Amino acid sequence: MGEENKVTLHGMWLSPYVKRVELALKVKGIPFEYVEEDLSNKSPLLLKYNPVHKKVPVLVHNEKPINESLVILEYIDETWKNGHRLLPEDPYERSQVRFWAVYIQHVMECMLNIFTAEDQEKACEEFYQKLGVLEDGMKNMFPVKSRNIGLLDILIVVAFGACKAQEEVFGLKFLDPKNTPLITSWLNSLLELPVVKESVPPHDKVVSFLRFFKESSSNAQAY
Amino acid sequence: MGEENKVTLHGMWLSPYVKRVELALKVKGIPFEYVEEDLSNKSPLLLKYNPVHKKVPVLVHNEKPINESLVILEYIDETWKNGHRLLPEDPYERSQVRFWAVYIQHVMECMLNIFTAEDQEKACEEFYQKLGVLEDGMKNMFPVKSRNIGLLDILIVVAFGACKAQEEVFGLKFLDPKNTPLITSWLNSLLELPVVKESVPPHDKVVSFLRFFKESSSNAQAY
Repeated sequence: MGEENKVTLHGMWLSPYVKRVELALKVKGIPFEYVEEDLSNKSPLLLKYNPVHKKVPVLVHNEKPINESLVILEYIDETWKNGHRLLPEDPYERSQVRFWAVYIQHVMECMLNIFTAEDQEKACEEFYQKLGVLEDGMKNMFPVKSRNIGLLDILIVVAFGACKAQEEVFGLKFLDPKNTPLITSWLNSLLELPVVKESVPPHDKVVSFLRFFKESSSNAQAY
Repeated sequence: MGEENKVTLHGMWLSPYVKRVELALKVKGIPFEYVEEDLSNKSPLLLKYNPVHKKVPVLVHNEKPINESLVILEYIDETWKNGHRLLPEDPYERSQVRFWAVYIQHVMECMLNIFTAEDQEKACEEFYQKLGVLEDGMKNMFPVKSRNIGLLDILIVVAFGACKAQEEVFGLKFLDPKNTPLITSWLNSLLELPVVKESVPPHDKVVSFLRFFKESSSNAQAY
């Protein structure tokens, strides 16, 4: 990798937003350096590269920083145009992918909200409602028929890839093949791909973190 | 306008998200039909074209619907490529425009939140903090130097174009040239452009609506 094309990703191992970028870079075959950030003690470089949000992921390409995971994914696709593309060429298809990309972000945020919500039942209800809409919408997108990993595949695998660990710790069933057969089978086929396998955080490590998180939250509520 | 290139915008006169699309179409010189929607009695067409959110704006191009204002603006720019472009060609510059587009959306939502917030002082504080960050960020974007109206110009004029009416009704100073000289002068120069003048809702109509809205809100709080 020449200095003229230096790519660095500042991330945190558990962040789904970082995982999106990591997976996109791997899928496109772009060599990059990874810098793990300690979010409790943010590095001067992170603060310099993302002064607005001070968050990961930050992609730095030849000293120029790009922030916000969806913005980074579009940048990656527009900069490395040869070979595999994450978004379709057709403007209408691109618009549909972008629409569902934003929607999947809402669904993922609703799911993460369940872990901290005071009214967990209500948070679950909202999540399942949105998940049902996503399942319906995906029927028209036929993403499973695509042989190349695209933007929506990346978002789906990152949103739901840790579901088994989350279900184990929180005792909730997030994805049920009966209710969401398309998303479930789509996710399972993505999780079999080597590039995905090497990117998802290890199951045991996620379970340990979630247990710690769950205990800290319940202790915080108890005092 | 041939039937092979039929463009319809479903909107609501006061919606800033609709105004973004209307302005983009006018700036690019794309002929379109406008359909005013009654949001208290949504039309079957609106529900058909935006079954997920059931909201305006919806752009329908040759019977195919596109939803979400930022997604629509990208679609417009990618579909009508000749002539005026809303986004720059360079991928890095595009990423910066997209980053600030999302940020301007946050700032606008914070401003709209002031009108309904229980703790108006806190809502104002949050808005001014975010507005200050936007003012700083725009220094590096040099948008005022551009002679063509771009995506950020559209978002700025829509976000702050009704500030005078809002200030008149709510007695708050949203934009102060002392604190945000760049955004204020940028907005003022945009408001002078004929294409903008014919797109912004009439001042008196906005004031009437806001007065009605303010009275309804205070009555609702009183009972």
